[in-house]
Amino acid sequence: MNLVAVDWGTSSLRGARLDEAGRVLEEKTTPQGILAVPAGQFPAVFESLFSDWMKAADSFCLISGMAGSRQGWAEAPYEACPADLSQLARRLHWIEEGRIAIVPGLSDEQGSVPDVMRGEEVQIFGAMRLTGMTTGLFVLPGTHNKWVTVRDGRITGFRTCMTGEFYAVLSQHSILGRTMQADAPLDEPAFLRGLAVADNGEGLLHNAFGARTLALFRRLSAPALASYLSGVLIGEELRARPLKDAQHVVLIGAPALTMRYALALETLGVGAQILGAEATWAGAHALHTVLQARSSA
Amino acid sequence: MNLVAVDWGTSSLRGARLDEAGRVLEEKTTPQGILAVPAGQFPAVFESLFSDWMKAADSFCLISGMAGSRQGWAEAPYEACPADLSQLARRLHWIEEGRIAIVPGLSDEQGSVPDVMRGEEVQIFGAMRLTGMTTGLFVLPGTHNKWVTVRDGRITGFRTCMTGEFYAVLSQHSILGRTMQADAPLDEPAFLRGLAVADNGEGLLHNAFGARTLALFRRLSAPALASYLSGVLIGEELRARPLKDAQHVVLIGAPALTMRYALALETLGVGAQILGAEATWAGAHALHTVLQARSSA
Repeated sequence: MNLVAVDWGTSSLRGARLDEAGRVLEEKTTPQGILAVPAGQFPAVFESLFSDWMKAADSFCLISGMAGSRQGWAEAPYEACPADLSQLARRLHWIEEGRIAIVPGLSDEQGSVPDVMRGEEVQIFGAMRLTGMTTGLFVLPGTHNKWVTVRDGRITGFRTCMTGEFYAVLSQHSILGRTMQADAPLDEPAFLRGLAVADNGEGLLHNAFGARTLALFRRLSAPALASYLSGVLIGEELRARPLKDAQHVVLIGAPALTMRYALALETLGVGAQILGAEATWAGAHALHTVLQARSSA
Repeated sequence: MNLVAVDWGTSSLRGARLDEAGRVLEEKTTPQGILAVPAGQFPAVFESLFSDWMKAADSFCLISGMAGSRQGWAEAPYEACPADLSQLARRLHWIEEGRIAIVPGLSDEQGSVPDVMRGEEVQIFGAMRLTGMTTGLFVLPGTHNKWVTVRDGRITGFRTCMTGEFYAVLSQHSILGRTMQADAPLDEPAFLRGLAVADNGEGLLHNAFGARTLALFRRLSAPALASYLSGVLIGEELRARPLKDAQHVVLIGAPALTMRYALALETLGVGAQILGAEATWAGAHALHTVLQARSSA
């Protein structure tokens, strides 16, 4: 058996070939996210990247992420929360019956406005397997961060925070960017200062302006200002999240970002277990196991 | 006597010629904000626009706004709050002694980080004259909104909110802009819906994403989404402002924007008196009156 797991996102595509036990045999990452794929070219891009891995007769491929959106390969409807793994398994969108499938995204309509995710659901089911934690809070920082509540192995609800995209547009397109080195490495004291300021009750719309005046008064350097703004934004994000009862969360994402969240959570007395791409592969493997159990039943 | 009042901002320049009593005789507005003026060209631009008005021997010109910043005509230091009109009069930066002066900006170092304004101080002193309100809250919406506390005719402190610039960068450069008609006229129900959502305790970083999902689920049109995001942002701004004890504020700015704030404040039971450019001219006239009283004393 040959399982190919693909996380096809907006700006990048990651794939892995797994063995029967879920061990990663090979991985590849390309910048061919869905925005870089012309309409109608999804099958060709897939073929060019994965035909080798899909050669074996018993190959099976699960694709998660934005490939299942309206702008992707084929639209897979959202499944409503609460949702478990067997629900995802029942609602696959088949590209090629029994061989290539797109995993549906999830929606949560329990808040003021609907919320959606695509791809993170597979990472979370994978993280549950890897950590053994099936009730708790899972946090996936990125462009659009997901805060996901899980209970008894089901995803019960989630909230998206645009923290990553706010950082990008403010540092690249607002007045704050003029005096800031947006890609500077983490300056921990400046980051912690931003976190503390976020808690002053004045709100993000005011606190962000501090990155302007601290530059104007020459009190923080251009690299430090980047960490300061990052702290203000992440601090703002944490203030409105359901962390009161959490003593421990699972963080899934790129190390440079999960490290900042771990640091911020630590200031609130919340511990974090950190996972990366392995969560996606473990999730695809878990989903495939459910599918196999169903087809042999 | 011929008073020329100039509000020289980042992206535009407004000037007015006033008579002894403060009545506006002529006005002009140009897009020659300080960003459009090459270094060293400020005297020439001033001359080209105002030489006619400055011909009379007793002409006097007061310039407020970003012309007094490091990137402007000449840097006028910030005066620290609390500050009154006679303090501004004492600290003018003279371009031409006794004839052309730049009004200093104000700083407020009472918060977590310093805050600054340039130009709004003149509008506020003018608004105090026009309304007779010398204790209370003055709100100046724009790119960088100012919330200004006044007591017995002195500006005691203020907070800047980047609400206007957040709207601009989110609607032009984030994913939200793709499904939004950013320059659509006000859609009141969508605006009020955004205001209500801002109060749900989930935070701006989450609530802004609603403008994405409401588009995705086709629940709001592209023009309505612009008003929705505007409501979410203004609602967020109001949440963190000291409105508890205010029953009435003075709003100063462009009609399209002050109207939205008046609407938002109304939902909180706060009344608003609205002023436009006349606040600047009244402020310059008041400042000039103080100067005349001092020189004749």
